[in-house]
Amino acid sequence: MTNQEVKVFSAMESSFGKRVEIALKMKGVEYEHVAEDLSNKSAELLMYNPIHKKVPVFLHNGRPIVESLVILEYIDETWKSGKSILPKDPYERAASRFWANFIDSKVLDALTKIYRSKGEDQDATEELGELLSILENELKDQKFFGGESIGLVDIVADLIALWLDVIQEGLGIEIFTQQTHPKLFKWSEEYMNCSIIKETLPPRADLLAHYFRSAYASK
Amino acid sequence: MTNQEVKVFSAMESSFGKRVEIALKMKGVEYEHVAEDLSNKSAELLMYNPIHKKVPVFLHNGRPIVESLVILEYIDETWKSGKSILPKDPYERAASRFWANFIDSKVLDALTKIYRSKGEDQDATEELGELLSILENELKDQKFFGGESIGLVDIVADLIALWLDVIQEGLGIEIFTQQTHPKLFKWSEEYMNCSIIKETLPPRADLLAHYFRSAYASK
Repeated sequence: MTNQEVKVFSAMESSFGKRVEIALKMKGVEYEHVAEDLSNKSAELLMYNPIHKKVPVFLHNGRPIVESLVILEYIDETWKSGKSILPKDPYERAASRFWANFIDSKVLDALTKIYRSKGEDQDATEELGELLSILENELKDQKFFGGESIGLVDIVADLIALWLDVIQEGLGIEIFTQQTHPKLFKWSEEYMNCSIIKETLPPRADLLAHYFRSAYASK
Repeated sequence: MTNQEVKVFSAMESSFGKRVEIALKMKGVEYEHVAEDLSNKSAELLMYNPIHKKVPVFLHNGRPIVESLVILEYIDETWKSGKSILPKDPYERAASRFWANFIDSKVLDALTKIYRSKGEDQDATEELGELLSILENELKDQKFFGGESIGLVDIVADLIALWLDVIQEGLGIEIFTQQTHPKLFKWSEEYMNCSIIKETLPPRADLLAHYFRSAYASK
């Protein structure tokens, strides 16, 4: 496939947008990145995603697709070249979808509560620690959730590898460390060391500055 | 494939469990139904779904899969015979997943608020009316969301065709009628008339009795 229009509307601070860029790089698909200001979203973004009004919006030859997990499945089904995002076996595919949903519902909910409470929601802190233990257990002794190379669950879990890490530094709390979750911590180091990840995710310092610039400036 | 063990752990009142049974019937797959009492879940259910502790649990040759949308994708990928649940085209598949998620997040949230408030949450009532208008618009002039025959979005939307209908009757409110949403209402009649749906969904009266037996007995 050549002469295709592939655009990603996203923002530096969006973990969900970065997922789409990582998937496109895994497939070797060139794309145009359209930077959105999430406090003042573009008319184009709102036109393409009138229901959720969120990034990422993925545009392929003029047709929009929204919601990061839906986009990742689309990319995997459309570009057969490059690395697979989901496994081939139906049972393993189901397991990957389950864990991706687990991170996007339970882990994200707890993380959001912690961020909004400035780290003072003890129940959420405790819950997140337990959820990470469940993921650590699921990882077993694999290098990645996808096995020897990254796949759907790893891409979705960058919410843990980078965003959680930044949030706990910004708030001065410790939920996820080498001591609390040794296997998952090792995973996060391996993940952040992948060349595609390094070239796609924003610098830690920029993300830290972004998340703690306004709401936490006076803390 | 023969001599397979296919079990569905579910309950009469679970829309999510019924989805799995409908999908299996579309594929012509025989299965054993294990009836769960949701107020006293079995040890087997909790063993197979330790994280969410919910129905449905789908068991295929001893291996459990949970979450109805994950199970529906698994069934479609595993049994190629019978009717397709998702479309073949990647863009249409993405659209189906989007609308299934829309129903399971926004529509379900509003419906839950209405049920819990005994119909007194006016904001939720208004919101649900608007969400149904969005679905009505998406249906266009098709017979089903899946086109000429039912597919993923139709199966997921039985939350509207039967459950919403029962809840509004039980509460004595009118959100979804032939007047408010004529195309979607016609869809719900067509859907409820499909032979597979008729033989799978519980009788309206049983569902009504179940949902309004305890909490609303004194209303």
